[in-house]
Amino acid sequence: MNDSSIDAHRLLGRIRVLGDVGRDADGKLVRLAASDADKLGRDQLVVWIKEAGLEVAVDRIGNIFGIWAPGGDRNSPKPLMLGSHIDTVIDAGIFDGCYGVLSGLEVIQSLKHAGFVPARPIVVAAFTNEEGVRYAPDMMGSLVCAGGLAADDALAAVGTDGTVLGEELQRIGYAGPEEPGFLTPQAYVELHIEQGPVLAREAVPIGAVENLQGISWQRVTIDGDANHAGTTPMSMRRDAGHAAARVVTFLRERAIGSNTPTVSTVGTMRFEPNAINVIPSRAVFTIDLRDPDERRLQDEEAALAAALEEIGTREQVSIRVERLARFEPVAFDRRIVELVEQAAHARGLGSRRMTSGAGHDAQMIARIAPSAMIFVPSIGGVSHNPKEHTPDQDLVAGANVLLDVAAKLAAA
Amino acid sequence: MNDSSIDAHRLLGRIRVLGDVGRDADGKLVRLAASDADKLGRDQLVVWIKEAGLEVAVDRIGNIFGIWAPGGDRNSPKPLMLGSHIDTVIDAGIFDGCYGVLSGLEVIQSLKHAGFVPARPIVVAAFTNEEGVRYAPDMMGSLVCAGGLAADDALAAVGTDGTVLGEELQRIGYAGPEEPGFLTPQAYVELHIEQGPVLAREAVPIGAVENLQGISWQRVTIDGDANHAGTTPMSMRRDAGHAAARVVTFLRERAIGSNTPTVSTVGTMRFEPNAINVIPSRAVFTIDLRDPDERRLQDEEAALAAALEEIGTREQVSIRVERLARFEPVAFDRRIVELVEQAAHARGLGSRRMTSGAGHDAQMIARIAPSAMIFVPSIGGVSHNPKEHTPDQDLVAGANVLLDVAAKLAAA
Repeated sequence: MNDSSIDAHRLLGRIRVLGDVGRDADGKLVRLAASDADKLGRDQLVVWIKEAGLEVAVDRIGNIFGIWAPGGDRNSPKPLMLGSHIDTVIDAGIFDGCYGVLSGLEVIQSLKHAGFVPARPIVVAAFTNEEGVRYAPDMMGSLVCAGGLAADDALAAVGTDGTVLGEELQRIGYAGPEEPGFLTPQAYVELHIEQGPVLAREAVPIGAVENLQGISWQRVTIDGDANHAGTTPMSMRRDAGHAAARVVTFLRERAIGSNTPTVSTVGTMRFEPNAINVIPSRAVFTIDLRDPDERRLQDEEAALAAALEEIGTREQVSIRVERLARFEPVAFDRRIVELVEQAAHARGLGSRRMTSGAGHDAQMIARIAPSAMIFVPSIGGVSHNPKEHTPDQDLVAGANVLLDVAAKLAAA
Repeated sequence: MNDSSIDAHRLLGRIRVLGDVGRDADGKLVRLAASDADKLGRDQLVVWIKEAGLEVAVDRIGNIFGIWAPGGDRNSPKPLMLGSHIDTVIDAGIFDGCYGVLSGLEVIQSLKHAGFVPARPIVVAAFTNEEGVRYAPDMMGSLVCAGGLAADDALAAVGTDGTVLGEELQRIGYAGPEEPGFLTPQAYVELHIEQGPVLAREAVPIGAVENLQGISWQRVTIDGDANHAGTTPMSMRRDAGHAAARVVTFLRERAIGSNTPTVSTVGTMRFEPNAINVIPSRAVFTIDLRDPDERRLQDEEAALAAALEEIGTREQVSIRVERLARFEPVAFDRRIVELVEQAAHARGLGSRRMTSGAGHDAQMIARIAPSAMIFVPSIGGVSHNPKEHTPDQDLVAGANVLLDVAAKLAAA
């Protein structure tokens, strides 16, 4: 298939059209899962799937599939699946998720047009609620697909706005008849923007994503004593805010000092009573730890626990930790990763192996099928932001690599 | 006067009665300046002033004075003034301020009853809006009294609830006819709970307050880059939250490491966007620096500025500082401080010289008259809180020291 390529004009045009669907009164892109705006995006996608001559199928959790099954049976032999999601965060960019879904569709349409005869069905999937902004957990549609969450439990999820996902899917017309998992993929490939700065900084157009970081989310609550900022000598303080700052600097120093890809982030912080002249009695903050190696992630968690113990004793504060989320790292399928590298090389595109720092639907589908991801550069590493940007040339290159990998995987 | 003492039963009774005036539906003590609850407290105070046979005078800013002028002229010779305030914070304890006003009244009433003949008038003052919760600035009534703020400007102050102080004083009947400053004190003595832990920890009943800390309040805004917590390598981060934590630990280490009474507090902290998986693009926090020595306070401010510069460069973040408030330290009158020590000693009470870490009306009146303060222990250093507590014995001891000091100061 190296002599063939996707229709760049059609792909780029669709990305831009979909990026204008679901903007709010201020022009912000907000297609939260199962919202009216999401319905508009879904309707547009379904129009394009039909235009491409594919069968549309929707499962009970609202996942949309565009199925090309020239052999007649959509599930035998097992289909190759390409996909991602089209729901967005609040005030989103236009590439996150949508790029992977529209490229999957584009690849199938191009293969079909080129007269390619696949040995198995090829399916493009748009999974429900990957972002998890309105309903928890994120990556919900793919998780249900992979059997990691019962569909009925997912449908009962109550949103930040008090709505129930199942009712919202009914309302917008995307509570489909198919049972989640009705398709059992032979392999899954997801093309996505990097959402990080590495490819852009190194001017490498293709990332062959070999694994996905494990994620450990914890909430820490530190309790000290609220006392008067003027009258309490430093030696008599139990300052929860200062203890929290110690944790932040500990995490940073440990991550910077190590020679590992571990990343740690304290993204939220709240002081109580939060008054200029009162020593904080309480500090509540979150810790986001990630590492592509499960053993190392456990080591980092243990080191953090030991540091909290030490800081609690030294600062005479009590420290409570809640686990908010924990995902083990995912190792993607080595053969598919190699196919991505080979396809990039054959097209004269530089590539590098890399770790996905963000969660993706691919990490869920990896539970039931050999999976991998292809990354393209994100300028400045910016994502979840209207400034999210990937140059057209890189978007097209990524889709062509997906085309070649899909052709290889579907050829046998 | 060492053979005489105040009427402990009357003083303690009044403190408890006043402490029950102005409680809200939940039983919380909330007598914000010029509120309906404040009116009830003022009315009760005026009843007691009249009971003691004193003249009641109210100035335009609502300061209440109980005047004992056996010589007939309330301002000649210059009166000795004792006082504090009876407005409170939200959900206050019963001692802050009220103890000083009711003890001043008790001292005058006891002296009168004992047949003491003063060489000058003695006045008890209850200053308006010391707490500054409803109207800014705090210590307003004493500041106006001392000529530091024009009465008309103070009366035009708009409260957190949108009310105008002057209108509220009219409404509650405490916009008096006297021009602020109509009394020019020969000396001012304020008895107050410590609001800090030192006396209670050291089991010393009397604090001879020799100075009051200078206060430097600054707001710091640090700007970095919001990036994905999973995909941004540690080395590529501009983490505003981490830079803020560096400032917090710097301040703590400097204050702990020095052999000075400097205290520093980061009481408020806010991250943006404050999301678990996003590196903070902005951290906003306040710094409260205090020291009884102006030169040292300036040194601390300079050290902080240098540290911010260094942290800004190292962490590649931009740092902006706003000054919110700055008060120079106040040195109290040495002779009055010695009188306090002598009075404690004569009554067999231990005493220690100390610095006031909080602001008080005395710091304003010190601008126009020799002033000092007497502290009594606060259990656990707790204040601005219903748990604020001082044992009866300490309350009585402090009032007796005030009695003796007042007798000395009014004797000539």
